[in-house]
Amino acid sequence: MNYPPALQAVVDELGRFPGVGPKSAQRIAFWLMRQPGEDVERLAGALSEMTTRLAFCERCCNVAETGGLCAICLDERRDQTIICVVENPPDVVAVERSGAFRGTYHVLHGVLNPLEGVTPDRLRIQELIARLHGPVKEVILCFNSNVEGDHTAMYLGRLLQVPGLVVSQPASGLPVGGDVEFADDLTLGRALEGRRIVSD
Amino acid sequence: MNYPPALQAVVDELGRFPGVGPKSAQRIAFWLMRQPGEDVERLAGALSEMTTRLAFCERCCNVAETGGLCAICLDERRDQTIICVVENPPDVVAVERSGAFRGTYHVLHGVLNPLEGVTPDRLRIQELIARLHGPVKEVILCFNSNVEGDHTAMYLGRLLQVPGLVVSQPASGLPVGGDVEFADDLTLGRALEGRRIVSD
Repeated sequence: MNYPPALQAVVDELGRFPGVGPKSAQRIAFWLMRQPGEDVERLAGALSEMTTRLAFCERCCNVAETGGLCAICLDERRDQTIICVVENPPDVVAVERSGAFRGTYHVLHGVLNPLEGVTPDRLRIQELIARLHGPVKEVILCFNSNVEGDHTAMYLGRLLQVPGLVVSQPASGLPVGGDVEFADDLTLGRALEGRRIVSD
Repeated sequence: MNYPPALQAVVDELGRFPGVGPKSAQRIAFWLMRQPGEDVERLAGALSEMTTRLAFCERCCNVAETGGLCAICLDERRDQTIICVVENPPDVVAVERSGAFRGTYHVLHGVLNPLEGVTPDRLRIQELIARLHGPVKEVILCFNSNVEGDHTAMYLGRLLQVPGLVVSQPASGLPVGGDVEFADDLTLGRALEGRRIVSD
């Protein structure tokens, strides 16, 4: 005996989600069965709407509400001469939250990871290079501070050697609120290398 | 800046799933955005279908494909005089898989857990008692072997003291393929208490 097909279909679909195994899929399916019908219909509607109303921005590859450009690319007050390159859309939200950046973005949708088969052609690198024909003065490579992030920054740094273009990376060092005593060696080392003159 | 509303709606809905936090919901939503549109529509359709085509069996409270009775309750070859009471629908699938039971089931949809607010009125106990007016000879209480399961079995054992009705529990003891050396004290103790005569 198995579950009725209508239930098994939902368990199978949920089991394809990243990080959701067969047991979790089953648990979520039974949880859904106990929810009011209109709640499940609202979820189904949101998913259906996602396929019709969302796309990736044609310029920066960030999430866009309609086809064409995203809200940031459409915003004429943003500085189109600086591009902050990030791994994924949530990174855009994080940089925006910092309030320290008024340029535009480019979302690679991943970082280089040869072991997992993520080679340059799997990332939105061609789209980034195409943008350099415009009035771009600086590209900031803003990746996670780990082997894959550093590797991707190094790769792009070499690729983007264009006359007149500045390629930069955010400073690496002590996190605000962090203790020197508990900082790891690498972080403390980078913080010292990148030291700034304290002016009065 | 936040996500477009169509994306945020999906993240919010997924974040309500049991065992799925805001970070996982975000990860699943972006994964869904990268899937072909027809795959997402198939998921939306399966969810929508779930609300119209699935219900709980009016007799045993197991999952049923259409309204009315489930496949097991409708099967006239099943012994209607024995009811195996379980916590959740997956337990029905597990007992069926063992091939050792040809009676019917009753799904409580939980076990007693006063600390988490699961009191007898939250379980399908009234529905079980209603079934005793029929030709029921035996009720098997088949719960997980832990505090909540034992507590629920004890509670139902007292409640079901009806003349002529046998209330039983599956044997507790060493799992098949298990080592005596590594069995925990409680399991080994119960296995010895429930020992059977070896006949030739």
